[in-house]
Amino acid sequence: MIKMTYEQILSLLENNQLEKLRETVNLLHPADTAQIINELPDEYQTLTFKLLNHEIASDVLPDLYDEVREEILENIQQNRLVKIIDEMETDEATDIISELEEDVSKKLLEKIDREDSEEIKQLLKYDEESAGGLMQTEIIAVHQDMERDEMIEYIRENYEEVENIHYIFVVDDNNRLIGILEVTRLLLAKSQRQAKDIMDKEVISANVNLDQEQVAHIFRKYDIYILPVIDNEDHLLGRITVDDIIDVIDEEASEDAYKMVGLESEDRVFTSPLSSVKKRLPWLTLNLFTALLVSSVVGIFEQTIARLSFLAVLMPIVAGLGGNSGTQTLTVITRGIALGELTIHNTSKAIFKEISVGIINGILIGSAAMLIAYLLKGNILLGVVLGVAMICNMFIAGLVGSLIPILMKTLKIDPALASSVIITMLTDIGGFASFLGLATIVLK
Amino acid sequence: MIKMTYEQILSLLENNQLEKLRETVNLLHPADTAQIINELPDEYQTLTFKLLNHEIASDVLPDLYDEVREEILENIQQNRLVKIIDEMETDEATDIISELEEDVSKKLLEKIDREDSEEIKQLLKYDEESAGGLMQTEIIAVHQDMERDEMIEYIRENYEEVENIHYIFVVDDNNRLIGILEVTRLLLAKSQRQAKDIMDKEVISANVNLDQEQVAHIFRKYDIYILPVIDNEDHLLGRITVDDIIDVIDEEASEDAYKMVGLESEDRVFTSPLSSVKKRLPWLTLNLFTALLVSSVVGIFEQTIARLSFLAVLMPIVAGLGGNSGTQTLTVITRGIALGELTIHNTSKAIFKEISVGIINGILIGSAAMLIAYLLKGNILLGVVLGVAMICNMFIAGLVGSLIPILMKTLKIDPALASSVIITMLTDIGGFASFLGLATIVLK
Repeated sequence: MIKMTYEQILSLLENNQLEKLRETVNLLHPADTAQIINELPDEYQTLTFKLLNHEIASDVLPDLYDEVREEILENIQQNRLVKIIDEMETDEATDIISELEEDVSKKLLEKIDREDSEEIKQLLKYDEESAGGLMQTEIIAVHQDMERDEMIEYIRENYEEVENIHYIFVVDDNNRLIGILEVTRLLLAKSQRQAKDIMDKEVISANVNLDQEQVAHIFRKYDIYILPVIDNEDHLLGRITVDDIIDVIDEEASEDAYKMVGLESEDRVFTSPLSSVKKRLPWLTLNLFTALLVSSVVGIFEQTIARLSFLAVLMPIVAGLGGNSGTQTLTVITRGIALGELTIHNTSKAIFKEISVGIINGILIGSAAMLIAYLLKGNILLGVVLGVAMICNMFIAGLVGSLIPILMKTLKIDPALASSVIITMLTDIGGFASFLGLATIVLK
Repeated sequence: MIKMTYEQILSLLENNQLEKLRETVNLLHPADTAQIINELPDEYQTLTFKLLNHEIASDVLPDLYDEVREEILENIQQNRLVKIIDEMETDEATDIISELEEDVSKKLLEKIDREDSEEIKQLLKYDEESAGGLMQTEIIAVHQDMERDEMIEYIRENYEEVENIHYIFVVDDNNRLIGILEVTRLLLAKSQRQAKDIMDKEVISANVNLDQEQVAHIFRKYDIYILPVIDNEDHLLGRITVDDIIDVIDEEASEDAYKMVGLESEDRVFTSPLSSVKKRLPWLTLNLFTALLVSSVVGIFEQTIARLSFLAVLMPIVAGLGGNSGTQTLTVITRGIALGELTIHNTSKAIFKEISVGIINGILIGSAAMLIAYLLKGNILLGVVLGVAMICNMFIAGLVGSLIPILMKTLKIDPALASSVIITMLTDIGGFASFLGLATIVLK
């Protein structure tokens, strides 16, 4: 395997040595080529992709960043795209085709390999984020009566077609999945043994409509590499491979991190600025309204502030620590939900824990703040007001930071949407109201 | 495979039907048993684990939550633990042993299988978060001259010992890794073929000292299931399987989400409250100091606030939106770094983009705020001050939210440590200073 650095490729491009470049990029590992194209200056990306032969191009295309692939697909000749897609596995072909304009994809589906085309049309019907949307139809499935040597012959015939076989699936007369057989086990089996004798009957599978997050949980929990996909009547439809699940896990982790701060998952490092602006604006607008709400709570105490302006100086401390405490709790709880650790059997324990942590931290940090305020302003009452307000607010932080995502999960709303904007609004209101409210009562 | 619900298990426990329970939990899939034990009330966890036979227990133990496993390990008899560890793969045994007190683990290592013990002692030397810390020594490695049928015999002898074979590794006379051979390919090969003729020479491997995040990148990029681990002279030492990489990816994603809000990775949903308090306190203390710093910036303008108390009412709006904008940028950038999308070749593009987004959103949201302030307070100058301060602050948010994590990455400090506490401090200061500063100048 040749290795070539980004700088070498860039220099070939800058010196217009395209024949040398063509030779190189077709010899690199496709994953390396994809990474280099992703990082090249925009003007060289399409040019470099054009130099790839169809087979390499079919491996590179799915690994490109969305924005890069979009640009390349806009500039590609239809005949070439047909040849590239013919080389792809069905799950990847489906993903690419679903990104195309409808009229383009329609024409394309007429031109590619007939059998593939039918399968892709079927795959396009499944929700992109379901087991059906992840699966490929390239599988080795055998009838339960098939003998060892027949199975080996069957694998031989399909070896080029199906990558990463590792397991073959065993079905009954009605194409219902009844077992799974590791290739290694087949290798060690005696000649006359039938599939049903050597297969593992305890087969873990996923329904075609299962959400991709649940599919990832199955891989996570059972430590498997390949998962067969079935319909409601146990008919075998396809399989999902673990490399696609790694993408799902990355995607879901990004999505969760994104939702926490009100970002859409398509808003990536290299999304165009205008497109990012559009995506972030609705959430910032919501944030403007939550900020106005917070401001109106402060407004209730404007008279107090007018008399005691140092309250305005100290009030960000109460709100700031409450906000941070609240997002800490929120993060622990949403990660716990995402990894499947938090279930119906243990939620109250989790909420109780977060509230306790909030109160204890509130007492500790509140006492420190009390002391500091006293030392700075020489006013013991002010210190007490600050300290008590912080305890109240960190209790609120523990409560809303845990209760809200759990409540949303129970209501089957995505808990990651209980974003920091909402939690911070509540801790801001809690902080300002408790601090200024106490001050109004105590510091007359 | 029998299925048993959590409720059924709990009811057996509550009715003290331990013999029935023993039968059940040893028939379930170990991953299901582990999940149920994790969720059971504390008082039943150790009891249920005690009912498992050694082999099942060896599969269940690594899947338990840290707190649950800790409790069980404290109450386990040494002889039983020896038998359980003898059933484990070396990577899992190493993880368990590293969690024990030193005197306990020393005694244990003397009692377990001699060969395993030597290998585990070796594995314990590697950094837990490196390729060496992840690998297992159970591998099928063959000499390059070995013929097909010999290889099959060799696999047969080791089939019970090595789970998930799928690939065998080919070495030269000096145990240097020179190729990899898919079991499926071996199945299809002719009888006299030697390993070196049918192996894939383009083998992707990892150095034993490579950081686990980089190891995960290799799996992610090359879509592989099994990765051989070598030393500096290419000697084959072990292998890493993709199921362990899924754990790494989950762990790294949690860690990144955690660091963003100043949490330690061991601070999970069911960590004891006191232990969580201890872990969160240092960060909240830091937060108290950043809040005091912010407060002292507001203090500079106390005179202005004393005259114009409505400024205190409006100032949380500027700070709030800046903080949210900043954490949005921070999240996009740190995810980009975590997934390896952001490299040296494209950082300036990313920073420039985030600053543009900050300015454009600042202008849009700032104008809306300007209008709202004018409508509410009937003061056009106040509106302008608010709007301009928001534009300034969202520019600051884009700048610090992107620059700081990238700078930290360049300085080889973990970019996720550029947490929201730091970014929020900067946008708070930026927001209060620009708003109150402008107001002091303009609204005399």
